[in-house]
Amino acid sequence: MMRSDQQVRVRIPATTANCGPGFDTLGIACTLYNEVALEVLEPGDEVQIRVTGDGADTLPLGDRNLVLRSVRMVLDRTEKKSSGLRLTLHNNIPLSRGLGSSSAAIVGGVIAANAIIGNRFSRDELLDMATRLEGHPDNVAPALMGGFTVSVMKGARVTCLRLPVPQELKLVVCIPEFRLSTHKARQAIPASVTHRDAVYNLSRTALLVGALVSGQLGYLADALDDKLHQPYRSALIPGMSEVFAAGKAAGALGVAMSGAGPSLMAYTLEKADDIGIAMVRAFRAHDIQSRYLCLGVDCNGAQIIE
Amino acid sequence: MMRSDQQVRVRIPATTANCGPGFDTLGIACTLYNEVALEVLEPGDEVQIRVTGDGADTLPLGDRNLVLRSVRMVLDRTEKKSSGLRLTLHNNIPLSRGLGSSSAAIVGGVIAANAIIGNRFSRDELLDMATRLEGHPDNVAPALMGGFTVSVMKGARVTCLRLPVPQELKLVVCIPEFRLSTHKARQAIPASVTHRDAVYNLSRTALLVGALVSGQLGYLADALDDKLHQPYRSALIPGMSEVFAAGKAAGALGVAMSGAGPSLMAYTLEKADDIGIAMVRAFRAHDIQSRYLCLGVDCNGAQIIE
Repeated sequence: MMRSDQQVRVRIPATTANCGPGFDTLGIACTLYNEVALEVLEPGDEVQIRVTGDGADTLPLGDRNLVLRSVRMVLDRTEKKSSGLRLTLHNNIPLSRGLGSSSAAIVGGVIAANAIIGNRFSRDELLDMATRLEGHPDNVAPALMGGFTVSVMKGARVTCLRLPVPQELKLVVCIPEFRLSTHKARQAIPASVTHRDAVYNLSRTALLVGALVSGQLGYLADALDDKLHQPYRSALIPGMSEVFAAGKAAGALGVAMSGAGPSLMAYTLEKADDIGIAMVRAFRAHDIQSRYLCLGVDCNGAQIIE
Repeated sequence: MMRSDQQVRVRIPATTANCGPGFDTLGIACTLYNEVALEVLEPGDEVQIRVTGDGADTLPLGDRNLVLRSVRMVLDRTEKKSSGLRLTLHNNIPLSRGLGSSSAAIVGGVIAANAIIGNRFSRDELLDMATRLEGHPDNVAPALMGGFTVSVMKGARVTCLRLPVPQELKLVVCIPEFRLSTHKARQAIPASVTHRDAVYNLSRTALLVGALVSGQLGYLADALDDKLHQPYRSALIPGMSEVFAAGKAAGALGVAMSGAGPSLMAYTLEKADDIGIAMVRAFRAHDIQSRYLCLGVDCNGAQIIE
């Protein structure tokens, strides 16, 4: 018989990483969520995975499923190692668009599995595990913690600082129809850069953190500028600079690629729909179909919902 | 006859720039001050400069004097262009030690001259002028504004964000006897760096700004790490890593080069004297004589004092 503490449901936010200059470091959790339901069955039972929403037809339902791998990473350290599992996934976060869908899968998996075993691992331990699976911490940290996060790698360990941001901040994300793998987007980045560009980015990163934390959002116009990844990736996103310009012209405080793209993000306090419409129109002029979402900042991170 | 509004006295704080990872960007004003007294004489009168304190025997007393050049830069835009001047300078900030003595001179000059002409230029305009003379904004900004500043160059213009820091933060600066010119220290820096090192620094810079502004000072241990200038400059400062280690062992939250060095700075909430003594002792083991000062954060920046 299955006991009730052997099932859990988790809600995990989408995340936007990099945030312009803060490559592999900054991330913000957004009010768009996936759900992961996990039931642990008897040892020797099979694994069943059901997916609805984004990726229902395409996500692997076997050992390569990322939520399953994340659940296994936690349970394999316990006596529940060889248990059967039932995973029910509902995805609202679009796949491979720069909104942290893989981090949401990983964080959903580790949080659900940890709940099943009585939260034996701390959030910091889960962050290290999730980062190991994802390869970089900038999406998993806000997916886990919520809000605005600074993640720093020190060897294989992550140091994560969670910071407050103005609750009235709106994130307008324009999501093109095509996908861009993070792997491909990473290959576009050179192994070395000028010292000047390195300083360019660290100065904007400092300005961005200071502006967000102190609520002086007028600085976002300059603070979101980047020279360490966006210029190299722009060829992968036709119309990027025009979409940025359209968002700014429609009233955005600042604009940046979301994660490794292809979604583009406008930061604003008002006129969110005007900005979204303008960005979609600018993509269309480059024969790219897209849609936009007006999101807020999620303050909670991944949460058990039942 | 000289009128009373033709003389002014200004007090200008020392500053520590870079603050570890924040190369050419971050700066903190410290409670150690120079004074600049300026009297504007009749047109055609001569220029008299008197210096007491640090640099009394070495600073130029003619056209190359940095305070004079800064005063001239402001007055040359006005009807006071060809006036005689009397400058009385008292320096507590040691020269060429990484504590912003040249920025203090420049800021003292522009603030004094601006006061004489009825503050016709805004602080932002003075910041641009001072940065042009200094070459980089990271010391002039906190010398002018006080507190903790983020300075970003956009072409020749400076964007400066002033941020709060915990008032209980103490800065223990260990000042070796030898001087190091900023020019020489800059030559040690390579033209290009790995993308990985660029990300290393921007992530620490984000952590540092977040930690200081949110008062989560425990993060300073990691947040002050740097790979963009300190490793290249360490050969110019014998014993640097041992002095850092001694400061940390004595209780510092974190340690960094002050500006381009050679002074080394420990950040702490307590045991400031223990830390200073330990750092001086570590320098001595490398045959470097030094002294230390326990400073606080100056919140006012350059101020007219009479």
